[in-house]
Amino acid sequence: MDFKSYIRDVPDFPKPGIIFKDITPLLQSHWALSSAADSLIKDLKKEDIDKVVGMESRGFIFGPMLAERLESGFVPIRKPGKLPYKTLSESYNLEYGTDTMEIHVDGITKGDRVLIHDDVLATGGTALATTKLVEKLGGIIVQCNFLIELSFLNGREKIKPFKVKSLITY
Amino acid sequence: MDFKSYIRDVPDFPKPGIIFKDITPLLQSHWALSSAADSLIKDLKKEDIDKVVGMESRGFIFGPMLAERLESGFVPIRKPGKLPYKTLSESYNLEYGTDTMEIHVDGITKGDRVLIHDDVLATGGTALATTKLVEKLGGIIVQCNFLIELSFLNGREKIKPFKVKSLITY
Repeated sequence: MDFKSYIRDVPDFPKPGIIFKDITPLLQSHWALSSAADSLIKDLKKEDIDKVVGMESRGFIFGPMLAERLESGFVPIRKPGKLPYKTLSESYNLEYGTDTMEIHVDGITKGDRVLIHDDVLATGGTALATTKLVEKLGGIIVQCNFLIELSFLNGREKIKPFKVKSLITY
Repeated sequence: MDFKSYIRDVPDFPKPGIIFKDITPLLQSHWALSSAADSLIKDLKKEDIDKVVGMESRGFIFGPMLAERLESGFVPIRKPGKLPYKTLSESYNLEYGTDTMEIHVDGITKGDRVLIHDDVLATGGTALATTKLVEKLGGIIVQCNFLIELSFLNGREKIKPFKVKSLITY
């Protein structure tokens, strides 16, 4: 299936010179939505995965659909101050400044086999922070998968120890 | 199924005196996650719904699962500046100040039959703004549904013209 045909280029977003890859046309097609979820878990078995971890907020879109297919729980990773229970935090560098992600300390049980999902792999900062949160809680990362990979940003390098899969590569 | 047993009370979040209803234990149980999605669409038929509209960011968790069950597209409602393409905006009042939500102008086609979903119905401000966005684009609202309704906040009153369903009521 040609998922690329469901991705819209939006020029100069979020700032001049950047061509944003808009996934909303794909989401609006129930067929593309379901097929993309099927493809994302194609090389995984139900027994491979205990938890699917998804990053706020577009990782919440496919994360639970992948969890359902794998008969796993879904664990959200959120920006600071959003998760109500006890959290573990991890900061990472941005072009200017830093950002932080949080996970509930009971989101992962030691030994849980984990699939990490986000919609886009760009520089890999968020993904790397997420791998650290999962490993600090004793999770075993089976795969990191993404709907879109912006390969020219080399995010894959940043999370090199892990198996990385993406449906659409630019 | 007793969904309430999967909701955790977190006292004094986000501020002292408030007991926050934490849905993450429900998300972590693949059985509760799937059963909740099943229950949310139980009285709807596939032919009833063309689009499921979900609000950022926790409406993204169940929204796509409902869309998949109903063979509908999923349309995200986001905070200002997040959606890359042409948007329609709607502001609503908070306790102090206002907030704004946006939808892509091509998210709804005139005549689309729409299910609006969010995780929590509180004061109904976000839900009301969403109904306005959907109707301005010519959508027909079939139902607004929520995992949790905080009935003491009377949000249901605010979206009274529409059919409202919630799985868990406090």
